[in-house]
Amino acid sequence: MTFSIYVPQHEPGAKLPVVWYLSGLTCSHANVTDKGEYRRTCAELGLIFVAPDTSTRGEGVYDDPEGAWDFGLAVGFYVDATVEPYAKHYRMWSYVTEELPALIAKNFAVDMSREAITGHSMGGHAALTIELTFPDRYRSISAFAPIVALRQVPWGHKALPGYLAEDEALWRRHDAVALMEDGARVKELLVDQGEADGFLKEQLRPELLAKACADAGIDLTLRMQTAYDHGYYYISTFMHEHLRWHSMRLQCL
Amino acid sequence: MTFSIYVPQHEPGAKLPVVWYLSGLTCSHANVTDKGEYRRTCAELGLIFVAPDTSTRGEGVYDDPEGAWDFGLAVGFYVDATVEPYAKHYRMWSYVTEELPALIAKNFAVDMSREAITGHSMGGHAALTIELTFPDRYRSISAFAPIVALRQVPWGHKALPGYLAEDEALWRRHDAVALMEDGARVKELLVDQGEADGFLKEQLRPELLAKACADAGIDLTLRMQTAYDHGYYYISTFMHEHLRWHSMRLQCL
Repeated sequence: MTFSIYVPQHEPGAKLPVVWYLSGLTCSHANVTDKGEYRRTCAELGLIFVAPDTSTRGEGVYDDPEGAWDFGLAVGFYVDATVEPYAKHYRMWSYVTEELPALIAKNFAVDMSREAITGHSMGGHAALTIELTFPDRYRSISAFAPIVALRQVPWGHKALPGYLAEDEALWRRHDAVALMEDGARVKELLVDQGEADGFLKEQLRPELLAKACADAGIDLTLRMQTAYDHGYYYISTFMHEHLRWHSMRLQCL
Repeated sequence: MTFSIYVPQHEPGAKLPVVWYLSGLTCSHANVTDKGEYRRTCAELGLIFVAPDTSTRGEGVYDDPEGAWDFGLAVGFYVDATVEPYAKHYRMWSYVTEELPALIAKNFAVDMSREAITGHSMGGHAALTIELTFPDRYRSISAFAPIVALRQVPWGHKALPGYLAEDEALWRRHDAVALMEDGARVKELLVDQGEADGFLKEQLRPELLAKACADAGIDLTLRMQTAYDHGYYYISTFMHEHLRWHSMRLQCL
């Protein structure tokens, strides 16, 4: 497994807060590392930034026999698959919530009591569902163009039965809106969404998140950004604002 | 020919100063556009940023028969070649100093009385030689890890005779140190150089530039950056400082 980590200069012995960044469908660690424009702000604010490659890939990893781009290889949706033969390698939920944090905590100057989580698209979906599952673990959460209701959109209609079989209860644990309907709560969310995003109306549907947050009493800041699409020019434009938002919540000891 | 241009928001009818960015060997417009981290600072300072693809390429462009990576296709060194068959397409000097500026001036909100020029590696070489050739044209010049004395380094030992034949007088016009020795002058230069750059000692040799500037009375700010290599993490780290340096010199009307 590959990941990238940015560690700002710091005093010897200091422990820094950490921002986890989860990438979208097919992306590797390199998309945000090359194009995300986070380092200068992280250096200024003293934030460690971790960008794992969370798109299932590598030798011996089973792929969709039809070679679909939105299912199988490079498309994990951050679940622990139960359907064979995906169950062997498609375990990104465990990787992101357990294995990788343990490895980072052991090897870098991270203060694991000060974690924030964010992500893009499929990774925004993961940031939301992980935070809703472990609401006391992360100090803050934001997302760029997240999938908010996987059960209600075409990507989920394929991925949920494909990886998790016909297990409606399990599906609901990988759907931010369903988690809120089922009682999961967080205090606040920051979500950015480009209005020129080609996936907006069919796959992303932030209006479903807005309604669920309103019903659940969750303080959602949903920023619709005129003329921005789904790509990294959009992400890098607003990255520093997200990092400052997280930093304000991470800096209190 | 492909180029990228970033135009910040501005008042209707306003004309903005422009920074030309010239890329290195084999790079396209996309290297700095994706990874250079210039947009936020350009937006803040009101600078137009133009990044042309200046690596000779495309259908029908003659390549070195041996397929060398540092000569022929994608390696123009910003000269107008005189050696056939390179002479037909290897004309980046004219493209960068005439054709492209005319096209940009005609189509975008550029104030062509306020130009700055910068570049990386082979593009830093070009920024230096172009500025020394047209010292009244650009308000300011900087470079990242430039080749400063093409006649004295292996890349030049191959490229200069290969593109310009055995024409020592012409070679000197594509060598910043030689141009200074021959009387060309600019007021000041800003040059950044990573100390962990693998090309530093054999190809880049900033000490030759330092000596030439001292002899010529040119105010050189040469910043050696500990632990940085030749890549875009280095460039993007210091890009905003170069842009501020240029902006101070461009903003006076």
